Order: sequence, then C-alpha cells, then structure tokens
Amino acid sequence: METVAAVTPSQSVATAAMQNDELLKQSTWQGVSVMETQWRVERLLSRYAACIDDDALEQWPAFFASDACRYEIITRENVERGMPLALMFCTSQGMLFDRIVSLRKANIYPQRWYRHVISNVLIQSVDEESLAVQSSYVVFQTRRNGQTDIFSAGKYLDRIVMRDGELKFAEKRVIADTHRVDTLLVAPI
Amino acid sequence: METVAAVTPSQSVATAAMQNDELLKQSTWQGVSVMETQWRVERLLSRYAACIDDDALEQWPAFFASDACRYEIITRENVERGMPLALMFCTSQGMLFDRIVSLRKANIYPQRWYRHVISNVLIQSVDEESLAVQSSYVVFQTRRNGQTDIFSAGKYLDRIVMRDGELKFAEKRVIADTHRVDTLLVAPI
Amino acid sequence: METVAAVTPSQSVATAAMQNDELLKQSTWQGVSVMETQWRVERLLSRYAACIDDDALEQWPAFFASDACRYEIITRENVERGMPLALMFCTSQGMLFDRIVSLRKANIYPQRWYRHVISNVLIQSVDEESLAVQSSYVVFQTRRNGQTDIFSAGKYLDRIVMRDGELKFAEKRVIADTHRVDTLLVAPI
Repeated sequence: METVAAVTPSQSVATAAMQNDELLKQSTWQGVSVMETQWRVERLLSRYAACIDDDALEQWPAFFASDACRYEIITRENVERGMPLALMFCTSQGMLFDRIVSLRKANIYPQRWYRHVISNVLIQSVDEESLAVQSSYVVFQTRRNGQTDIFSAGKYLDRIVMRDGELKFAEKRVIADTHRVDTLLVAPI
Repeated sequence: METVAAVTPSQSVATAAMQNDELLKQSTWQGVSVMETQWRVERLLSRYAACIDDDALEQWPAFFASDACRYEIITRENVERGMPLALMFCTSQGMLFDRIVSLRKANIYPQRWYRHVISNVLIQSVDEESLAVQSSYVVFQTRRNGQTDIFSAGKYLDRIVMRDGELKFAEKRVIADTHRVDTLLVAPI
Repeated sequence: METVAAVTPSQSVATAAMQNDELLKQSTWQGVSVMETQWRVERLLSRYAACIDDDALEQWPAFFASDACRYEIITRENVERGMPLALMFCTSQGMLFDRIVSLRKANIYPQRWYRHVISNVLIQSVDEESLAVQSSYVVFQTRRNGQTDIFSAGKYLDRIVMRDGELKFAEKRVIADTHRVDTLLVAPI
C-alpha cells in the first residue's frame, strides 16, 4: 500500500467495464428471486445482531449450519500482511457452544452492552449451493458508566447456505479493522 | 447477567428450533407482501431520521398516529432492573407538539447537529392491526467545533399501524444503552 | 436556527398532510418497480462504499456517469450559512481520476483504513431521467495503532441516472456535519 502505480483514465476504462454489477443478471437463487434473497439475508444478519445485542448468546450457534461451520475473527492487518493468524477460530457448532459456555463461566469483565450496526449488505456472488455476502459492521459498546464508544469496525465475509428452508452461515469471517486484542476476546462479533 | 447457567448443546438445539424465522411463513399484511411492508417500514424510519437530522422538528409529531400515540425514552439499565422510569414519556400527539415548542423556546444549548444511523430493521411479528418492529439506532452529534461524537446508541421497539394508507408509529419505545441524562433532554431520538 | 417561531398543532396538521409519502404512488421507474429500484440504489451505494473501504480507489470514478458528473464535499456549516464553498469539487470523470492519481502520489499520510456505514437510503423524488436520493453516512477510520474513531458524519445528496443498464451518479453532494478540514483532504467520502 506504500508504493502504488499511478492510474490513467485509459486503464480505468477497462476497470470500469469489469465493474458492472453481474448479480443483476441473475434472476433467482434456489427458486427465490435475488431481490427476495437479499431481504432474507438482511433478516439473517439483523437477527444475528439482535441475538448478540440482547445478550441471548446461547442462541448464537444456531445461526450457523450444523453440518459445515467456520467462524473466524482476524485483523485486517494480518490479512494484508498475509499472516492468517486468527484471534478466534471455530470449525464446528460445538466449538461455538463451548465458547459461549466459557464466556458465561469466565465472565470477569465488567458488564457492558453491545450494539451492532450492519450495513452495505452486498451479495457478491451466487452459486447453486451458497451465497457470498460482504457487509460492513461497527459494534458499539456501552460500559457501566453509561458512556458508549466504538468496540470494533470491520467487515463480514459470509458464505450463506439454505438448510430446512432457513438461511444459515456456513462460514463467517470477521475482518476487523480495529485491533485491540483485549476487547476482541469478550464476545462474538 | 452476573449469574448465568451454563448451556449445553442439547438445550440449545431446542432453542435453535424456536429460532426459526416465523415471519417468512407470513405472506401479506393489509394486502401488501411482507417484503414490500419491510420496504415501507424502512422508508418510515428513514423519513423519521431525516426529519430530526434536518432539524424539521415541527414535522416530527406527524410520524405518530393521531388516535393512539405513545413515545418513550428509557434507559436499558432501568429496563433490566425492572424500573420503568422513562426519561421522556408522551401519550398523545399534542404532548409531542408541546415538547417541540418547549425545545424551540428553551433552546439554551449550543447548536449541534444530529445524524441517525438506523439499521438491522427487523419485523418481529405481525397481527391484523399492527407490526412489531425492532431496530438498532446510533445517533451522532456534531458540535460547533466541528467534532462528531456518539450521542446515543440503543434500539427502537416500534408498533406501527396503517392510517389513510400511510404507516405511523402507534408506539415508539427508545431503549437507550447510553445513559447520559443531560444529552437525552435536548432532542427527540 | 437561533430564532424559531413556535408551532401550534393546527399549523402542523398542514405540515403533516404535506408529509405524506408521495413516492409510494409511483409504481415504476424506467420500467422497473420502485421497490426494485430501491434495491438497485442500495447496491450502488454498497459497492461504492466497498470500493473506498477496500482501497480500490482506481475504480472509484467508474461509479459516476462519464457524460455528466459532479462530485462535491461541502460542510453543513457552509450550506446553512449560504456559503457554497466546497472542500472538493469535481465536474468531470477526468477530474476524479486526477484526484486519485494525486492521492496515490502524494500519500504522505500515515496509513489508515476507512469503513463506511450508509443508512436511511431514501429515494426523495423521481423524474424520467433521474432519481434524487438522500442517505446518511458515517465514515470510521482506523489508524496504525489499531484504534477506530469517527472520520466524518453527514449526508449524501445524490442524483442517479441509468447508463447502459447500470446506475451511476450524475451528481454526488457530500454534506459533512463534521468539519475537520485536515481529514477531509485524505480520501473520497
């Protein structure tokens, strides 16, 4: 990122052509229109956020597919340096359950509340099995003193599948711009 | 929240079953598809936010139903302690008008601007008369010195009805994570 | 804003009548339903945000119409004082390209990441040629030390047109509540 080649308008015309929104040519996914699929994806993300913010963490693992599940928090710094070292890494629903049990048992942290803002939800691509979805998140935290500040900002890279008529995360990668390791250990993002 | 029972995977399977998205089985509300209803609810919230952020407060009461209106700001701390003591509580459109008049007359506060971010808009349930809708909000404020900070974060619990073809709030409960009482008295959230 | 006439309920009834959501009476734009148009506008904004946040700035000009393009950053303070002095003002796609080239060449600033939250996307009016769309934005920045703070909050006033089946910005006005001039010079908002 320190050394970047200059760009000329002619180069960029090619880029612009590549930038057309290919998804708009897709009409359906699993028998549902792409627009309705967008609505369902946004519902999934809203319910996911409400689950964490309402401190109903016991329900959090159920947002993931039971047969194929991967949850990862990694800093953007590590991603850009090519160091795939995750702050959290779970590869089964059972590991997600364990994590919540640990959180509840070991909760020596002062009480705080989280508030997720998830925006710019973008279905990037679609195949027969799954959706690749990117979104921006900012999580705010409010401490006992009543002050609210920024806990973590970044993006979600999700792979979403259909199971028994419900959308579930087969993979959720949290790429955190913010890298304060202490806070990242408290709750799922 | 200090003492929480551990959760086992078997318990959580039951939870997961309860967690299915029942709304998706509902196809219409008041003759309109649920997906279009979602769009209309989001328009209502966006127009509500723009009204406050553009300082058009005189129009703010018109977002509420004239025949059944309840507006309340309460801290999450009070909700969780079972103390239903509201920071603001209005039970008629007239009270909302009065509040704006007071604000305009008594405005001894330095000028500041608000910016609402409303996200994760979730229709929770639907009956013949009304929609129950939850959303996350974060309000930012910019002071005269040009600096922007967080004014209030929390959630809206809204009951929305249809009046003359327009959606209106029959009830709007603002559950504020942030509890700085001084700022809460300045403007509607 | 310092001197404001009091408002009475009777005045406000007129205001409320004007406040009806006229867009809902519109059924299509350029042969597409207004609801689907909303979805496409939100995709445009989400892709625009991802372009900047992923530091793919070379693609940024392609979000604008090549035949009619205007990009402007102006503070809300200046707008309200009637001083139309923009912090940035580009009137062609070529000027947008030039800006990115300058940014890349002159990048003496420490590396930072941006994260856009765009919400409350509101199609305000529609004519045969274009859409007028207002939205709220908050841009967060994360510095090398890993701390995230608020970079800029404000609103977008966009005029959006259709070119070769894709939505493009014919005009994008960034009205910034925040007015820290130093930061505004670093990257597009």
